[in-house]
Amino acid sequence: MLAPWRSPLSSAIHRNRSKPHSRYFQLATVTPEGITANRTVVFRGFLDDEKYSNTLKIITDSRSAKIQDIEHQPLAEVCWYFTKTREQFRIRGKLQLVTNTETNADLQQARKTTWYNLSDSSRSQFAWPDPAQPVADKSAFDLEPPDPNLPLDNFCLLLLIPQKIDHLQLKGEPQQRCIYTLEDDLTWSTQAVNP
Amino acid sequence: MLAPWRSPLSSAIHRNRSKPHSRYFQLATVTPEGITANRTVVFRGFLDDEKYSNTLKIITDSRSAKIQDIEHQPLAEVCWYFTKTREQFRIRGKLQLVTNTETNADLQQARKTTWYNLSDSSRSQFAWPDPAQPVADKSAFDLEPPDPNLPLDNFCLLLLIPQKIDHLQLKGEPQQRCIYTLEDDLTWSTQAVNP
Repeated sequence: MLAPWRSPLSSAIHRNRSKPHSRYFQLATVTPEGITANRTVVFRGFLDDEKYSNTLKIITDSRSAKIQDIEHQPLAEVCWYFTKTREQFRIRGKLQLVTNTETNADLQQARKTTWYNLSDSSRSQFAWPDPAQPVADKSAFDLEPPDPNLPLDNFCLLLLIPQKIDHLQLKGEPQQRCIYTLEDDLTWSTQAVNP
Repeated sequence: MLAPWRSPLSSAIHRNRSKPHSRYFQLATVTPEGITANRTVVFRGFLDDEKYSNTLKIITDSRSAKIQDIEHQPLAEVCWYFTKTREQFRIRGKLQLVTNTETNADLQQARKTTWYNLSDSSRSQFAWPDPAQPVADKSAFDLEPPDPNLPLDNFCLLLLIPQKIDHLQLKGEPQQRCIYTLEDDLTWSTQAVNP
């Protein structure tokens, strides 16, 4: 069942579709030291699954620093600002990592499908030298693209299962703001609030 | 003295100046419950001060939820993605709030100057009903703009004093990434790393 925030979010995605960067958002996590970390990631669509139908897909590398953050604190917040329509969705939720050892067959299939749908250049990044290490020789980045049918072991699907959405529309007088809260596994409350 | 990351950041700001949204970035903090919060804020320039010359200016409202976050954990991370040049600056640093009771004369003056430089509509937002409360009547938002020479008590200048910058350039083969770290009060190290 679609959550009530899915319609305004789909509308924003549609109305901003001319801008490729409208599919990027900022994902904040908390490090084991209790400091926040914040980076841009790409929205890979919603999980095609009845139970988890409101779940956002992201991808990550098992060598990325955010893996430790997620193990320490799975709750995270996405900030998704749409530049054309001037609206923001803050999406708080639980992150769930789907790795090469995932035993749930549906999730493992979703990982494989997501890998298959990537571009060659996106897949190649998972074969690059270890991120954040002193820079390697240029030749180390010059690789044949990996097999689209065989995800590299370090490729992870990252799921964000939303619990609270704060939608702010800067256009309009006054601005509009609405908070959606997951009350239980299925029920969302909707509250219009002051911006 | 300008930090070594100031030049690439100034260049990014300049090259993206045709896009008003290039002055927006996402600020992540940690709530007292240890969860991260992430929202879009506007870059208000650098602090015009010899000692704090690499300090970024933001504004906030003393009624905003992020005030409690900052008291709990002043370390925060900004993610600043430039859509035109396709580059990202992750700026980790310490937040410092400058309120109406600030006793440092230079900082209090910076607060007043920042208020003065806002638009009428930006200043009016500080006179709006309490944020995140059930939505008030439209008339409560229809106000005379506040005096540009007299900041409202709830208007705060928010400073971000950077400690670590992670600069990623997606353009180019391969991508370029450089990490700048504050080693002591004055010295920055620069390290090219794998993207």
